[in-house]
Amino acid sequence: MFRNQYDTDVTTWSPAGRLHQVEYAMEGVKQGSAAVGLKCKTHVVLASVNKASSELSSYQKKLFKIDENIGVAMAGIIADGRVLCKFMRSECIYHQFVFEAPLPVSRLVVQVADKAQVCTQRSWKRPYGVGLLVAGLDEAGPHLYYNCPSGNYYEYYAFAIGSRSQAAKTYLERRFETFKDCSRDELIRHALLAVKESLQDEELKSTNCGIAVVGADEDFHILDGETLQSFIDTLEDNKAEAKEAAPEDPASTSGGGEAGPSAGAAEEPPAEATPMDM
Amino acid sequence: MFRNQYDTDVTTWSPAGRLHQVEYAMEGVKQGSAAVGLKCKTHVVLASVNKASSELSSYQKKLFKIDENIGVAMAGIIADGRVLCKFMRSECIYHQFVFEAPLPVSRLVVQVADKAQVCTQRSWKRPYGVGLLVAGLDEAGPHLYYNCPSGNYYEYYAFAIGSRSQAAKTYLERRFETFKDCSRDELIRHALLAVKESLQDEELKSTNCGIAVVGADEDFHILDGETLQSFIDTLEDNKAEAKEAAPEDPASTSGGGEAGPSAGAAEEPPAEATPMDM
Amino acid sequence: MFRNQYDTDVTTWSPAGRLHQVEYAMEGVKQGSAAVGLKCKTHVVLASVNKASSELSSYQKKLFKIDENIGVAMAGIIADGRVLCKFMRSECIYHQFVFEAPLPVSRLVVQVADKAQVCTQRSWKRPYGVGLLVAGLDEAGPHLYYNCPSGNYYEYYAFAIGSRSQAAKTYLERRFETFKDCSRDELIRHALLAVKESLQDEELKSTNCGIAVVGADEDFHILDGETLQSFIDTLEDNKAEAKEAAPEDPASTSGGGEAGPSAGAAEEPPAEATPMDM
Amino acid sequence: MFRNQYDTDVTTWSPAGRLHQVEYAMEGVKQGSAAVGLKCKTHVVLASVNKASSELSSYQKKLFKIDENIGVAMAGIIADGRVLCKFMRSECIYHQFVFEAPLPVSRLVVQVADKAQVCTQRSWKRPYGVGLLVAGLDEAGPHLYYNCPSGNYYEYYAFAIGSRSQAAKTYLERRFETFKDCSRDELIRHALLAVKESLQDEELKSTNCGIAVVGADEDFHILDGETLQSFIDTLEDNKAEAKEAAPEDPASTSGGGEAGPSAGAAEEPPAEATPMDM
Amino acid sequence: MFRNQYDTDVTTWSPAGRLHQVEYAMEGVKQGSAAVGLKCKTHVVLASVNKASSELSSYQKKLFKIDENIGVAMAGIIADGRVLCKFMRSECIYHQFVFEAPLPVSRLVVQVADKAQVCTQRSWKRPYGVGLLVAGLDEAGPHLYYNCPSGNYYEYYAFAIGSRSQAAKTYLERRFETFKDCSRDELIRHALLAVKESLQDEELKSTNCGIAVVGADEDFHILDGETLQSFIDTLEDNKAEAKEAAPEDPASTSGGGEAGPSAGAAEEPPAEATPMDM
Amino acid sequence: MFRNQYDTDVTTWSPAGRLHQVEYAMEGVKQGSAAVGLKCKTHVVLASVNKASSELSSYQKKLFKIDENIGVAMAGIIADGRVLCKFMRSECIYHQFVFEAPLPVSRLVVQVADKAQVCTQRSWKRPYGVGLLVAGLDEAGPHLYYNCPSGNYYEYYAFAIGSRSQAAKTYLERRFETFKDCSRDELIRHALLAVKESLQDEELKSTNCGIAVVGADEDFHILDGETLQSFIDTLEDNKAEAKEAAPEDPASTSGGGEAGPSAGAAEEPPAEATPMDM
Amino acid sequence: MFRNQYDTDVTTWSPAGRLHQVEYAMEGVKQGSAAVGLKCKTHVVLASVNKASSELSSYQKKLFKIDENIGVAMAGIIADGRVLCKFMRSECIYHQFVFEAPLPVSRLVVQVADKAQVCTQRSWKRPYGVGLLVAGLDEAGPHLYYNCPSGNYYEYYAFAIGSRSQAAKTYLERRFETFKDCSRDELIRHALLAVKESLQDEELKSTNCGIAVVGADEDFHILDGETLQSFIDTLEDNKAEAKEAAPEDPASTSGGGEAGPSAGAAEEPPAEATPMDM
Repeated sequence: MFRNQYDTDVTTWSPAGRLHQVEYAMEGVKQGSAAVGLKCKTHVVLASVNKASSELSSYQKKLFKIDENIGVAMAGIIADGRVLCKFMRSECIYHQFVFEAPLPVSRLVVQVADKAQVCTQRSWKRPYGVGLLVAGLDEAGPHLYYNCPSGNYYEYYAFAIGSRSQAAKTYLERRFETFKDCSRDELIRHALLAVKESLQDEELKSTNCGIAVVGADEDFHILDGETLQSFIDTLEDNKAEAKEAAPEDPASTSGGGEAGPSAGAAEEPPAEATPMDM
Repeated sequence: MFRNQYDTDVTTWSPAGRLHQVEYAMEGVKQGSAAVGLKCKTHVVLASVNKASSELSSYQKKLFKIDENIGVAMAGIIADGRVLCKFMRSECIYHQFVFEAPLPVSRLVVQVADKAQVCTQRSWKRPYGVGLLVAGLDEAGPHLYYNCPSGNYYEYYAFAIGSRSQAAKTYLERRFETFKDCSRDELIRHALLAVKESLQDEELKSTNCGIAVVGADEDFHILDGETLQSFIDTLEDNKAEAKEAAPEDPASTSGGGEAGPSAGAAEEPPAEATPMDM
Repeated sequence: MFRNQYDTDVTTWSPAGRLHQVEYAMEGVKQGSAAVGLKCKTHVVLASVNKASSELSSYQKKLFKIDENIGVAMAGIIADGRVLCKFMRSECIYHQFVFEAPLPVSRLVVQVADKAQVCTQRSWKRPYGVGLLVAGLDEAGPHLYYNCPSGNYYEYYAFAIGSRSQAAKTYLERRFETFKDCSRDELIRHALLAVKESLQDEELKSTNCGIAVVGADEDFHILDGETLQSFIDTLEDNKAEAKEAAPEDPASTSGGGEAGPSAGAAEEPPAEATPMDM
Repeated sequence: MFRNQYDTDVTTWSPAGRLHQVEYAMEGVKQGSAAVGLKCKTHVVLASVNKASSELSSYQKKLFKIDENIGVAMAGIIADGRVLCKFMRSECIYHQFVFEAPLPVSRLVVQVADKAQVCTQRSWKRPYGVGLLVAGLDEAGPHLYYNCPSGNYYEYYAFAIGSRSQAAKTYLERRFETFKDCSRDELIRHALLAVKESLQDEELKSTNCGIAVVGADEDFHILDGETLQSFIDTLEDNKAEAKEAAPEDPASTSGGGEAGPSAGAAEEPPAEATPMDM
Repeated sequence: MFRNQYDTDVTTWSPAGRLHQVEYAMEGVKQGSAAVGLKCKTHVVLASVNKASSELSSYQKKLFKIDENIGVAMAGIIADGRVLCKFMRSECIYHQFVFEAPLPVSRLVVQVADKAQVCTQRSWKRPYGVGLLVAGLDEAGPHLYYNCPSGNYYEYYAFAIGSRSQAAKTYLERRFETFKDCSRDELIRHALLAVKESLQDEELKSTNCGIAVVGADEDFHILDGETLQSFIDTLEDNKAEAKEAAPEDPASTSGGGEAGPSAGAAEEPPAEATPMDM
Repeated sequence: MFRNQYDTDVTTWSPAGRLHQVEYAMEGVKQGSAAVGLKCKTHVVLASVNKASSELSSYQKKLFKIDENIGVAMAGIIADGRVLCKFMRSECIYHQFVFEAPLPVSRLVVQVADKAQVCTQRSWKRPYGVGLLVAGLDEAGPHLYYNCPSGNYYEYYAFAIGSRSQAAKTYLERRFETFKDCSRDELIRHALLAVKESLQDEELKSTNCGIAVVGADEDFHILDGETLQSFIDTLEDNKAEAKEAAPEDPASTSGGGEAGPSAGAAEEPPAEATPMDM
Repeated sequence: MFRNQYDTDVTTWSPAGRLHQVEYAMEGVKQGSAAVGLKCKTHVVLASVNKASSELSSYQKKLFKIDENIGVAMAGIIADGRVLCKFMRSECIYHQFVFEAPLPVSRLVVQVADKAQVCTQRSWKRPYGVGLLVAGLDEAGPHLYYNCPSGNYYEYYAFAIGSRSQAAKTYLERRFETFKDCSRDELIRHALLAVKESLQDEELKSTNCGIAVVGADEDFHILDGETLQSFIDTLEDNKAEAKEAAPEDPASTSGGGEAGPSAGAAEEPPAEATPMDM
């Protein structure tokens, strides 16, 4: 479609009633490496693909703690995401200070979404180019939200965003109904397996992924490398179990595993597009 | 018509005296999933089509409570709509606080419309891309208003907005004269049937639609899933009754049912236009 | 004439010394349904064509009370007009409060015109797209003014604006010299007949038109449906009288009646141009 | 000359060192109906051509009183002119209040010119589109100034601006040396005859022209219709006298009378250019 | 040279390191009628060509008094020049008030130049289009400065600016070395003869030129018409003397006199470029 | 790729979800001469290639001290970098003053990154065109960060930026695993050898490179020329040692040495692109 | 190279990571007449080529005193340079007032550079178009800095900027190593000879050049014409000496003397580019 007239300015509507600049910013989320979130009855787990921009560097942080009970995984322009995290942290502190109670996750998510909406309606700004998976626990239990550059947010049972996230999403869609009753450790293993789907040909190691957990009995924290590696080591068994629990998987998983990367390959960020997270 | 010269800026008039950007924003309302409103002598009912953006997510909220006696259903860019809801809530609270009386629905609707008008006359903003069905009850009885991105508002007996709303509108136009004397429950059933028209081939379930009611004896509230399902379950009977009440319907309904979706199909948002509600 | 270079910005003069954007905004007035005003020695009557945007809606209000002795009928973008009405009301209240006397109509009209002028000289705004017929009574007697988007205003004996207003204007031009001595009720009947000319093939009903009156002995008020209908019912007789009073009419009226709508048809707003009043 | 690159913005110089937008605004003055000013030793007279925009309306006011001793006639965009009049009035009031003496005409004229200059040097504004003939009396005697959209002002013995003003200017140029010693009434008659030249084929009536006088012994005031008509009635005699005083006139006047309108016809504002005064 | 890309905005450098908009503004100075300045050991004389825009008007003032000891002659957009004069006057008053001493001419000239520089570096403004010849006397003796639209200023022995100023400059260049020891009256005569060179075919009269003087023993003042005419009347003798003092002149002067106007003719402002001084 | 539509404004997203202007600013870093950073367990060393813009000038400073324990090496637009250094210094002073403790390096780096992010989201600014290698020591030990124009930052073991940095990066990648246990002096020698790789055909001298160190027992300081030269003089031995430690080097180093400059040659800034550091 | 897309706005990066507008502003420095600076162990000398814009004018000042111990020579847009000088003077006064010590030259130079940097990063401004040679003496001895429009600054032993400065630079490059031990008077003679190289065919006179000195025992001051002429008169001898000191010179100097101007001729500003210094 030829659409060069209406897609350079965030304050310009297309004749079809669309805001192309907002849609393009949503494409920006796909440029970053994948992030995954999923929840059971008691816990929420966030996982991220960590790619170092070079052998010489450590990877860029993609999991951020916001408050005792809230954390975030992000994909897209991490610099934009940091601005939003900073905002979220001060909202939480402010609420705690004024009301002497933690800010409910759902309200925090709305405030972030409102902040993002402003950038979609002013000519001198641009929409944020980052997607946030917000994991939190409040009186209503564990929550997983996705905050999108458009200023929308959605609650999810499980979700994956970023580059080659389709394979992870396929993994999650097949199993998400069993997540509800998973234990914390099973949930972490599912997260790792979903992340693995987005890694294409790479092996899953404690250096190329990250896991964070928040739950009924534990504050939001990021697993250290050792703990993470021990989970990865148990995956072989877990995989087997998972296959048992979902016996129709083998074929479709391998099929999905093949289709995923090849579909994902088309989403691959071009080599020079470096400001995105990796 | 070739009109690329006057349709990129909200402060530019076309030679024919039109504001194309405002019209395009009104197209934005059609990109969201449908919302329906209708009223009888004592109640107003709002209904929405809830589409989850993915199997993994819950649907995005499209029904919002503003005050004890006022609520809103929206179609289009929900992030824009949230900003307006926030504004409406603080107007209600402010009025209650200052005048110790609820803000009449008609005045709230004007204030929202004035806020929307500002965005149609400043070069650094864009018109809101959301349509609001405002249901409210005040001393003058139940009201149903439609607030449009253009800054206009209209009072309706019954109305439907959003994607494939034409089929629902056709349903409403045929029966709206009977609504006045409907009971609350009949009105809810009409709302569900109108929503059903917009669903195309999908079955009506408590997960893909929502109903909210405000009436003489009940505050604005959104029906919980169970209650909603029980209404859906009674629809078969109701449908029969409805058909009796409007005996010329069967042919035209099926005709409308066929024509609606096919006409609606043309309005279908393109697959990549995701910031809209679904 | 090819004029694409000078007509997109309100701060740009054309080489011929014209402001095209202001002229285009004046075209916007013609996009709304017609409004009519006329006065006799003691009263001013405003009339409007009310078109519901759908069978399901009530029509959009086009007659507004500003103060005890002042009211307005509008054509064009009603959302813009509301902003101006709000401004007029606060000017009246302010003047009453400070000077303990009503604001003379002529001064109110100047203030509105000055407010409109500002929008024709700033690059970040657009001219208002609405025409106002201001009816008022002050110590100098009854007045009828027309406030134009250009920031100009004119005093009229009788005037019609909006879509297909030419037919109404023709009616008024033929008879306006007799208006001065009309009674209040005769004036209302003339207003209705003028409105009728703008209705094309539609029948005049209390639901598709509105009448407001302000006069020596009555505050500005909008006639209720019943009263309005009773006036419409007397029109047959009145028409006859009118014809007697202007015996050369029959041919020319029918001619005008034929010519009017067909000329008016060219002015018909395109089907998709919906933010205008209807 | 092809000059589309430098003539859309008031802050852009052309390579030849000209500001085209300012020149275009000066063209705007020619779009309004004519105004004439002339002075003798004791009086200044302003005259205007009044054109009603329709049979139904009164004409738009073009003569404005500023202070006891100062008044204005304008041609071009009257809405812009009103803004300047408002400014002039408050300058006069302020000066009277602070210095307990009337503001000298020459200083008022400079202040208006400075205000106009600002609009020729800011990118977010446009030059005013109105020419002002300022008539005033102060200790230095009677004055006639012309304030131009460019921010310049000139003192004149007699001058005419607006549409078809060339014919009036020709009339004035032939006789202005005799004006100095004219009586007040002779001056008014000259003003009327100059106005007549700009009327083309129309007859001079008290309804299509206006006269204002300020002089040694009378405050600035606009003649009422009756007085004006009585002056018009004496014109036949006056004309004869005038011809005697300038015996070479007959041929040239008729020539000028013919040439004037035909030259003026080219200046005629296009039918749709309505925001100008008429 | 094709240079349309870099010459529409004052904040845009051309690849060659030039600011075209500033250069164009300097062309604006050439559009106004000529002004001349020259000085001897004790006096500075400013002269201007005064052209009335019409037979009916007096000429536009081009000589302005700033302070007791400072005055200005200008060419170009007089409205811009007035703004600068106003600024200069308040700088002088402020300095006198604070330091109880007159502002030295050289510092005033720098302040004006700094004010002009700002307009060459902001995107929302345009450079002033006027050249100022500043004549002043302070403790360091008489000074003649030229303030240019570019924000530069130069001290001159004698200078001429504006339309057809080349002929005057040629006159000055031939004789300026003799000016130093001229008496006040000789200097005035030189000024008049230089002005004469710019008048092309017109005769020098007290109505088409102006002279202002400031000197050791006299405040800045503009000569009245009578005094001016008496100087003009003595020019014949003076001319003869001047020729003796510079015997190689006759040929070159007549040659220059011929070449000057014809070269000047090319600089002639186009007929429609009216906002300039004349 | 043809991409002229989305790459001129930092607030415009490309359809692929990229911000081209941010990517271009990152190219700006490659225009400056190289800078290198590397760390062991106790020290961080920064090195820079110093190129004098002319024989007559000293080189431009590229190593800056921020605080006792923090320093910076930069490549790209040094003027932009200075602004960031100034900001960093006042952040450090402020933190020391308020909390009586040094600002942790990691937090300083985030604050700089947040400042850079702002310039990537406002239409009236441009992203900074400088890359910063931040070396610091805090309670968590030595750190080396890279702050990028995009608002991202990465922690590195060793890194090189700027023109022809690829050769240095290759050198670092081959040996960085041995750096951890290097002594301070060995680390400096590695830094010099890495810098040497970026120098192409030039010899390493104390005048064309710079070294700064921060470590457990020494504040951040830049080595003086003498000390630096003595390190350079020891490099022959060191090189031999290094080759022993990495025996597979000789071939690959020379290969890299050849490939590096030839690849680097393509990155060479064009002769006229002088505002970059050199 | 075709580069019209990225070179009109200072906030736009080119795909190659360059800021063309900044580079163009640096070209602006070459449009002004040359300025030269050089230093020995005890003194700094600034020299300038002074060109009067006309025979009638004195030359424009290009040497400015900032403080007792600091002065400036400039090339390019002198109006821009004046703004920077004003800033420098108030920085010096402020520092003296607050700290009771003179501002070190190096810090002043940074502050000017930071001020220049701001103009390279804001869309509503343009980079300054002037190069400054800053000569100063502080506790660290004599300094010569060059402040560039890009916001960079460099310390130099000797440097030349402006039109035809290449010839002067060549002169300086050949001898600068001997400058260190020159006496004050020898340094002045070198400065004059360097300036001479930039003069092309003109003879060196005290009217077409200027010299300023600051040193261990003398405040910054500009040499008066007499002193300057006496230095010029001694140049013949000096030249001979200089040739002895650098015996390989004769051929290369004459060669350089020939090559310089012809290369410089290409840099010659076009005749109409007048706002530059001359």
